[in-house]
Parts: sequence; structure tokens; C-alpha cells
Amino acid sequence: MTDLEHAIQTVRFLAVDAVEKANSGHPGAPMGLATVGVELFTQHLRFDPQDPNWPNRDRFILSCGHASALLYSLLHLAGYDLSLEDLQAFRQWGSKTPGHPEVGHTPGVETTTGPLGQGIGNAVGLALASKMAGARVNAADNALIDYRVFVVASDGDLMEGVAREAASLAGHLGLENLVVIYDDNRITIDGSTEIAFTDDVQKCFEGYGWSTEAVDGHDALALRGAINRALTASARPSLIRARTHIGFGSPGKQDKAACHGSPLGKAELSATKAAAGWPDSPMFRVTPESYAPFKARVVQNQAERAAWLKQFDRASAATKEVWAQLVERKLPSDALEQLIVAAGTKALATRRIANQVQQKAAELMPAIVGGSADLACSVMSTLYGAGNVGKADFSGKNLHFGVREHGMSAILNGLSLSGFFVPYGSTFLIFSDYMRPGMRLSALMERQVVYLFSHDTVYLGEDGPTHQPVEQLSTLRLVPNLHLFRPADPMECAAAWYHAMTRSDGPTALVLSRQDLPVLERPASFEPRTVLKGAYVVSDVEKPELVLIATGSEVGVAIEAKAILAASGRRIRVISAPCWELFRALPKAEREALLTPGVPRAVFEIGSTAVWQGVVGEAGLVIGHDAFGISAPWQRIQQELGFDAATVAARLAAHYFA
Amino acid sequence: MTDLEHAIQTVRFLAVDAVEKANSGHPGAPMGLATVGVELFTQHLRFDPQDPNWPNRDRFILSCGHASALLYSLLHLAGYDLSLEDLQAFRQWGSKTPGHPEVGHTPGVETTTGPLGQGIGNAVGLALASKMAGARVNAADNALIDYRVFVVASDGDLMEGVAREAASLAGHLGLENLVVIYDDNRITIDGSTEIAFTDDVQKCFEGYGWSTEAVDGHDALALRGAINRALTASARPSLIRARTHIGFGSPGKQDKAACHGSPLGKAELSATKAAAGWPDSPMFRVTPESYAPFKARVVQNQAERAAWLKQFDRASAATKEVWAQLVERKLPSDALEQLIVAAGTKALATRRIANQVQQKAAELMPAIVGGSADLACSVMSTLYGAGNVGKADFSGKNLHFGVREHGMSAILNGLSLSGFFVPYGSTFLIFSDYMRPGMRLSALMERQVVYLFSHDTVYLGEDGPTHQPVEQLSTLRLVPNLHLFRPADPMECAAAWYHAMTRSDGPTALVLSRQDLPVLERPASFEPRTVLKGAYVVSDVEKPELVLIATGSEVGVAIEAKAILAASGRRIRVISAPCWELFRALPKAEREALLTPGVPRAVFEIGSTAVWQGVVGEAGLVIGHDAFGISAPWQRIQQELGFDAATVAARLAAHYFA
Repeated sequence: MTDLEHAIQTVRFLAVDAVEKANSGHPGAPMGLATVGVELFTQHLRFDPQDPNWPNRDRFILSCGHASALLYSLLHLAGYDLSLEDLQAFRQWGSKTPGHPEVGHTPGVETTTGPLGQGIGNAVGLALASKMAGARVNAADNALIDYRVFVVASDGDLMEGVAREAASLAGHLGLENLVVIYDDNRITIDGSTEIAFTDDVQKCFEGYGWSTEAVDGHDALALRGAINRALTASARPSLIRARTHIGFGSPGKQDKAACHGSPLGKAELSATKAAAGWPDSPMFRVTPESYAPFKARVVQNQAERAAWLKQFDRASAATKEVWAQLVERKLPSDALEQLIVAAGTKALATRRIANQVQQKAAELMPAIVGGSADLACSVMSTLYGAGNVGKADFSGKNLHFGVREHGMSAILNGLSLSGFFVPYGSTFLIFSDYMRPGMRLSALMERQVVYLFSHDTVYLGEDGPTHQPVEQLSTLRLVPNLHLFRPADPMECAAAWYHAMTRSDGPTALVLSRQDLPVLERPASFEPRTVLKGAYVVSDVEKPELVLIATGSEVGVAIEAKAILAASGRRIRVISAPCWELFRALPKAEREALLTPGVPRAVFEIGSTAVWQGVVGEAGLVIGHDAFGISAPWQRIQQELGFDAATVAARLAAHYFA
Repeated sequence: MTDLEHAIQTVRFLAVDAVEKANSGHPGAPMGLATVGVELFTQHLRFDPQDPNWPNRDRFILSCGHASALLYSLLHLAGYDLSLEDLQAFRQWGSKTPGHPEVGHTPGVETTTGPLGQGIGNAVGLALASKMAGARVNAADNALIDYRVFVVASDGDLMEGVAREAASLAGHLGLENLVVIYDDNRITIDGSTEIAFTDDVQKCFEGYGWSTEAVDGHDALALRGAINRALTASARPSLIRARTHIGFGSPGKQDKAACHGSPLGKAELSATKAAAGWPDSPMFRVTPESYAPFKARVVQNQAERAAWLKQFDRASAATKEVWAQLVERKLPSDALEQLIVAAGTKALATRRIANQVQQKAAELMPAIVGGSADLACSVMSTLYGAGNVGKADFSGKNLHFGVREHGMSAILNGLSLSGFFVPYGSTFLIFSDYMRPGMRLSALMERQVVYLFSHDTVYLGEDGPTHQPVEQLSTLRLVPNLHLFRPADPMECAAAWYHAMTRSDGPTALVLSRQDLPVLERPASFEPRTVLKGAYVVSDVEKPELVLIATGSEVGVAIEAKAILAASGRRIRVISAPCWELFRALPKAEREALLTPGVPRAVFEIGSTAVWQGVVGEAGLVIGHDAFGISAPWQRIQQELGFDAATVAARLAAHYFA
């Protein structure tokens, strides 16, 4: 056997042994992909295991994350900080080798994959980020960022709409630095792809604007030729359809769904090793020859990295400043104050105010780039004067995602994972439903991604119930590590953007109104940072009889209702709670100072009521809306549903003061 | 002008006038699509406005629902119960002409559209239902069901992944009764499609297995030829790319995004009418000639319907029985009891028990058909002995959706809209996130669709946080009109399926465990229908000191914890609450009988806690999980997170009995 053949067999059996020991996992894909993986890691990828975060490293994305044992085996052989003991702890509590690859958890893992299709979207974002960062920091004679992105994707990945959306945009943008190797093994969990998936995949991807070719995925030299052609001969993203055999080498299970998601079993494992001339024991055997091709590649890569460091040194001061802006993202100490000035003092729709703030945010933090799923004009999320990103020029800041919300969410994650950008994406709040899997991964991966969602309640009006969010405010709040801000006026818009800019360990969603809102009056002594607590007293009273909590467009109405009831001697404290998650996490003392235990509470928010019921208690009143909306002008909806100040005051009076 | 030209101009200006009067809506697409619409309604569609529910009518789907004014104008001219006054009330409170078309609300509207891409998925489901129903009720000489499905779809529809997923499956299944007319107007809300969408759409669809051709969308005869070829010359679904001009005929706004989503404005409307030789007033003008081609078509269609009624009469008794089973869906009075017997009495995973129940459910209700997004084996959702649906044979019951959750949800809605099926779809609970937009439309359209979601908590184990649901139980409950059942044991599995089978005005989700659960002990007098209340006392005690509410896999553990605490003299009532929505909707007296006001309450459910906090109050304990999960065997997760009976008992004791 050649060293490469050693490496391929070692990877194959490390992966299979890991699954067998865990008695859980997916052996078939790693067995079929061992040649592809070794070929990529030893012949193509630029990386340095000593510096897994080298900014210009090539990115490798295992979109079919269930084949994680393949990736872990490759990372071990490549010299990353991942030992054989780590492989032996595959899928165990606290190990570095969880069931699906998790970025930030295991060195060399570039993104968290498992939910199919997402990895392709992340890869498109990473490839786009390479182009966009390059457009900012590369000189004619000094390309600091030109990394490539390599993906291994399964049938399942390609069936997912999110992958097709992202692929379509990648073709549109001509991302020639993106190579997807499609593991055409013709088997999914439920059997042959013949039962559900008979696309001419190459034709589809050519339709998306890609180059494609087909090779034998077990033929390293054929793969090498195809990958080299993809990298050099094409101005388009490339799909290489690699025909492989799932469970390659297993006498009883090759090409069968049985090896997809279950261990081979002791007998079949032994038979497979015997057929390959591989000793049955020890488990987790690594032949010394297997390390050699990886070491050779790393030596070459480390030389490239050393050269890159020199390149970086000789970059101009201006370039280094741009670099620092993209990567370090330092803000002036008065950033919040600057955002507040930018927000203005006019009674406008918060989508409009937030866009004013966004201009300043992007000026203060040049890493901010983004775009919309074809609703930039409606959400108001354009960065003016910042240029559009397109195939011919990646130096702009405005992206056009098309009507591809899900693809957008996955691409935003890729842009963020690059390390160069704080990306934002916009659409109507209702269409956050199209993006949830990507948003959840932003939260799980602790990515600083900003979502701009306008048209936040049934008040969007005439478009009717298909477009009117009801449960979305609450359902987004329940995603772990996602913060949702629903600002009520200019100051809260500024605070919301400030939160999104300074929160580096997770995504923030800004939820914005379509209609104009009043500017809230606050005492001169008001400290704007109070808004960042998530909830604060916006209109107080001596000895309150009722604490009324409201968010977004309901805060102004709540203050009006308070005034109406004050006329009959009622004393209501109004709390604005732009961020439920932060409000919920307040220390007990702060929470009690706000709420004053013993005083009854009510909530007013035009959306699902359930997540607020715990705040007011079983006997408390949550004025909200748990049913679908209706098509009509918004003022009529307000009147019909009883959300105007007079009716709200009457509902509060009937509940608390009758 | 010919009568057809009259009709086209009338449709164009009715739609534009409706938008103008509402001062809201989308004039551009109706203007560009008037020829396509009139061509379809007067030359191709089989329908009878006197019987909008004629089972074998052709279905027309306006996937780009924002062009609703086009559809309403066509329906008016075609003779449906939709008057000019209705058109004049476009987008107003309570009108029959809401902003986007809503099925069940306006006669002739076949599905609710607006969220882009969904209509194409619904159409695939409807076309599939035509084939599947035909396979059940057609005789060689008597085809009762062979309706066709015609779709008008926009650039936005085609960009959406859900449309690509559904199209791929339609190609796989060879649905030759499906014709999609793609409104290639090259304009989206944010501008030219050149900024984001440059697919070779025909090549893509050919890759999915479709026939395609391109025509001038303003040339009725060219359209006619293409549609006829699509219907007769192809054994595949067909895409006709119709090049149109958005805002056709508007001197200042044709081919511009400005006419996409805003009224033309008075001046431009006048200019457009002047250019067409159309009087500026009255608004909502219908030339008498415009009705003629629709009337001619309806006369022909009514003859077809009369012939069909005779065909139906001469169908065999066996066919009529099958028909009644599909359409009327009568259940025996002991259906619940039969399902309980089918559930068995073994301590198994609820996914396994539910599958046993499902076999009986499909026997009792032959309209039940469905499948999985490539997780039939894991969710356990196969109907044994019922055959697979495939291109060559549509008589089976098992569908293979591939790894296309979102497409599945839209297709399920189409199957349901056909009137012939109660469809189900299965995947892991976490992947409900991929399906939410389609599920929300099931709920909005009040469709009887069944979702089977297994792997319901972090206890799915080794697959880790990408696959472990946390917030999904709660976020699905918050979708209006969607019921979620999380059964704890065989009897509850039977009740859950019974609820799904008998609830005809909305979807039901069954959420199932991966791991085995104990069979709950109940007194001999227990009335199984109590489970259908959504919550009931499963283990009572005299004078309870605490009411402990649990769901699904937590019920058995709660009963164990109760026993542990009983040993130290504590008295706990355990309530099983398989359906939070029904529990929440209980009349006050029933709720109080369950909960006994004054007695403290706790909740145990391994998921988001917030929606339960209102039940226990601010001081109450919800034992749940608000963070992401971790990859490990499930028993280890249980131990680490403190969800075993001993720890739950200790947590309850510390909170309530310290």
C-alpha cells in the first residue's frame, strides 16, 4: 500500500471503530468518503493545525455532519489537537467529538453541521466572505485573503431547499473559490435515492450557474484532476459529483441503507477489516505510514502560512487599519450616544428609525454588511452609499439575497464564521419562519448575526393573515441564545442596534414596526443605558396600583391608557420591555425594583400571550392576540381588536379596578 | 377588439382599479398576467362556478398570491359568487377579497397563497392527489378523477427552496397533470432579477425531470399552444416560461419595481388607461364583451360536469364505497377503543406505539396516506402492506418525500386540499423548524393534516444539540389552530391519533419519544375519553399539597417522584397534560377541578419553560430545559441535567417542602 492508501484505510477504520465503540453514529458515509477526505486534506487544503484560526486558511465544510467520524479522523491525522483518546470518546458527554461537528468545540471544525443543507449555505457565505474581505484588504501585489472553500455534501444536503437557494445565489455571484464535492452514494436513511431523488443534479447546478463534472469518488487521481480543474479552469462555483459506495468495503452492508445510521456490528466490522487486510484488533489502529501524507501537506502549508505572515507584515498601514476594523471591531466609548443622535427625534416607524441608526452603526463598525431577502425597500435595511455586492465587484456592503430567506440565514452564518463580518439580513417578521433552522444555528454557534424584521404585528394591515405575525415574537424569544429587541421609539432603536453590535456571542433580532410610533417622553435624567437592561420604567407614578408592561408599538398606547385611567384617579406604572430575554434574566433585586412585588401586573403586546402569563400570574391580564389576523387597514384592525388606548384602558379598568 | 381582448383589458383594469381604490396592493403582476389568466380561464380550465367544489374540477393556483386582484377579477368574470362590489371592497375588513387569496373565504380560491413558493408545493400535492385518487376510484372506462393543476408562479416563488423541493419531487413522480406558468417578468420588489436571480430556470427544471418551454406571455395563441403541448405531449410536469412585462401598458411604470407593490397612482392610472384606449371612468368598468369568453367556457364546463355526474352515477358500488371512505371518512363509534387495543400494553417508545396505532387508524380511515422526509424508519411512520406511491403506481399509501421537510409540508397541504386524503408527514421534532411556514398554512387553512414528530427531547442522545429539540414543543403550541399531542403511553398514543382523525378543522402534531416509556397505571374505572380533554389526573391522592403537571416521557418520572415523596408523607397529585392547547382552553370549572385553586403547582417537561410559567405562577417551579442540549447517551443526559425521579423529587421538595 502507498502512504495515501494507508491513510485512506486508517481514516475509514478509525471512523468505523469510533461509531462501533460509541454504539451510535453513521459509519457508511465515512467509509465511502475516506478517499475524498484524504485527497482534500493531503493534496488541496491550506491549513496549519498549529494555528487553526489562520485567517487565510482554506475552509473545509462537512455539510453532511452525520459523517462526523470522518472529519474527526482526518483532523487527528492532520495534526490538530484531537487525540486518539478523543476519537475513542466519540459521542460521549463532554468529549471533543460530539455526534455532529460543532464549531468552537473541536479545533479544525469550521461550522456546526447536521441539519442538512445548512453547510452548503454556510460555505457560500464563507466563499463570499473571502471575496468581500479580499476586496477590502488585498493589494494588487499582496493578496491577504483569497482562501477557498471545500464542501462535502450528501444527497440529503442537495435535496434541501436551503442548499438550492444558496447554490443559486453562489452561481449568480460567480463564487469560483467554492468547490462542492457531492457524495453521490445513492443511499439515504430510507433506502435507495431511486425512491425519492432522481434529479439530474449536474444539470440543475449548471442551471444555477455552476461548473460540474462527475468522477469516481474512490479514485484519488481522478478526484485530484477534477478538483484542480474546479480551482483553476472555472470562473464559477464547481460541483464535483463523486460516485461513491456507502459502507465501502463492507461485504454485507456496502450500498445498503443499513450502514447509514447504525454501527456495522461486531461481525460485519470484522468481516470488513478482514476483506481489507486490516487487523481486527487493536481498535483505533493508525499505521505510521498514514501520518506521512498529512505531515507533508502540513509542512508545505506551514511554509505558506509563514509567507502569509510576511505578506501581512508588509501590508500598508491603511490595509492594516481596515483589517483591524473588520476583525477587532472596536467601538468608540460614546457609540451608544452617537447611535441615539442618529436615531433622531421624529415620530416615525421604527423600521425607518432603525435604518437611520444602521447607517451610523455601519460607519462605526465597518464589519457590518448585509442585505435583504428582496425586502430591502420595505424593511428599510439598505446601507446608503455603501455599494452593492455583485459578481464584478465585492467591495460593496449591500447584498441582494433574492427571495431566499432560508438561504440568507445560512449564508449570514457563513459570513460571520469568516471572522471578517458582522452580517445582517432583513425580511418581514412573518418570514422568520422560513429562516428558523439557520437562525437556530446562529444561536447554537454563538455567532454575531443581526436580523432585521419589520411588519411586526397584525398592524401590517392589508396583506392579511398570511403576512401578519402572531406567534413569531414569542417563538423567536424561545430560541436559546437568541435575543429579540422590539424597540418602541428612537432611543430604543439605538439601544437595540447597540446591543446587536456589542453582543459578540450570539445573534440579535430587531423587530420593527411598519407604522409610525410616537416618541416616548422621558425625564431629562434618563440614562439611555437603562434600555439595555431589557426592561425599565418608562412612565412612573407614586404608589402604583398596577404595573403595565408593554413592548414596541404598544408602549405609546400603554402610556395613553395610563393617562386615561389617571383621570379617574388610577395610578399605573408603565414599563417598556424591549427585550424579554434580558428582562427575564434580570437579577431578582432589579426585577423586584421594577415590578414591586404585591402590585398587580398586566402586559400589552399584540402577539401570543402565553410567554407573558408567567409575569402577570394566572389572575393577571395579558392583552395580546392569539388568533390569526385579518386583511384590512391597520387602524381598522386596531379598533376591531380593541387595541386603541381607550379600549385598553377600559379592559384594564374592568379587570383590575372593577 | 375581440372579446378575448376585451376580457384581458377588463381584467387588467379591474385589478388595477381595486388596488387603486384600496390604496394598497400589487398592480404590476396582474397587469402583466392578464393574458395568461384569461387564457387559462377561458380556454383550458375545467370548472363550474355554480359548484366550486366539483371534485374533478381543474385546480388553479395563484402561487404569487400578492397578485390576488388578478384572481378576484377572473373569478368575477367567470361567474363565481364574487360581485363588483366585492372587488370594490378589496383588502377591507370583512370583505371577500382579502389582500392575499384565502381558501374557504372566497369561492374559486383553491389554496391560501402569499408566502412565496408554498403554492407550487400545494399544487404538487393537488396533482399527486389527482393521481392517487384516480388510482383508487377510476375504472378503465370511467375516469372519475383526472383533474389537472395549473399554477401561475413568480420569480419569487421559484427562488424559494420550498418550490425547488416540491418541483424535484414532482419531476421524480412524473406528475404530467401539473402545468406551471412561470411569470418571467424579471422584476422583484427590490428591482431587476439581475441583482439576485440569474438561474437558467428551464435548465434547472429539466434537471428536476420537467418539460419546459418559453413563450411570450402576452401572446394568447402562443400560450395556448404551449399549454396544449404541456397537457398532451409530455409525461412529465411542465414549466412554461412566459415572458411578461410587469405593469404592462403603464407608460411610466411598466418593467419597473415601482409598480410591484404600490398603487399606480391617479395620474399613472389615467395615463395607462388612455394609452389602452380605456375610459378613465367609471372605475371597475366591465365591457359586456368581456363576459362572453368566460360564459362560453362555463357552458362547455357545465356540460362536462353534467357528464361527470352521470359517470359518477354509473360507477360501481365498490367504487362508490371507496369514494365515500375517502371523502366522508365515517368512523365506527368504537374507533377510540379499537385504537387503544392496537396500541397494546407494552412499555415501548411512543414512536413505536404510535406506529401500531397508525396501522389501525389507516384501516379505519382509508383516506389516511402519508410518508416521511427520509426518516420513516426512525420515526416509525410506515403503513405496512399498504404499498409505496411511485411514478408507475399511485395506488399505494406510503410516500417518500426525500430530505425535503418544507416541500413535504406544502405537499401535505395540497393533498388535504384535494378533499380526498387525510395526509400525514413525519420527521424528527427538531426538523419541524424546516416546515413551519407550511404548517402555519395548514393551521390557517384549517386543514386536517397530521404531523408525526419523534425524538422529542434532548433524550434523543448522541446526535447532540443540532438534533435535540428544546423550544420546539412550545413554539409549535403557539401556532394558532395547531394542536400538539405529546402522549405518555399507549392509551395516550391512541387518544392522540383519535384526536388527529376526528379533528377536521385544523392540523394535529403527535410528538413522540425515541426511548421506551413505562405504561401508566390507571384505575379500572378510567374513561379513556378523559385523555381527549388535554389534561387529566393520572395519579391522585387525598388532599394534595402539590399538583404536578407533566407531559410525555416526564409523566412516568413524575409518578415515580410522587412515590418517592410519598415515602416522606408528601401528597402529590400528578396530572398528565398531553395537549397544552386543550388544557389551556378548558372551561374554568374543569380547570379548577383539575388544579384545585390554592394548591401550589409544578410542571415537569424537558423543554422551554416559559409557556408553563403562567400555570404555576411566578413562584412556581417549572422543571424544564431552556438551553441547548449536548451529545451523549440519553441516560447520562438525564443524570447530568437532573431529570431522573430522585432528583426531580429532591428539586420539588427543596422548592415546596423545605
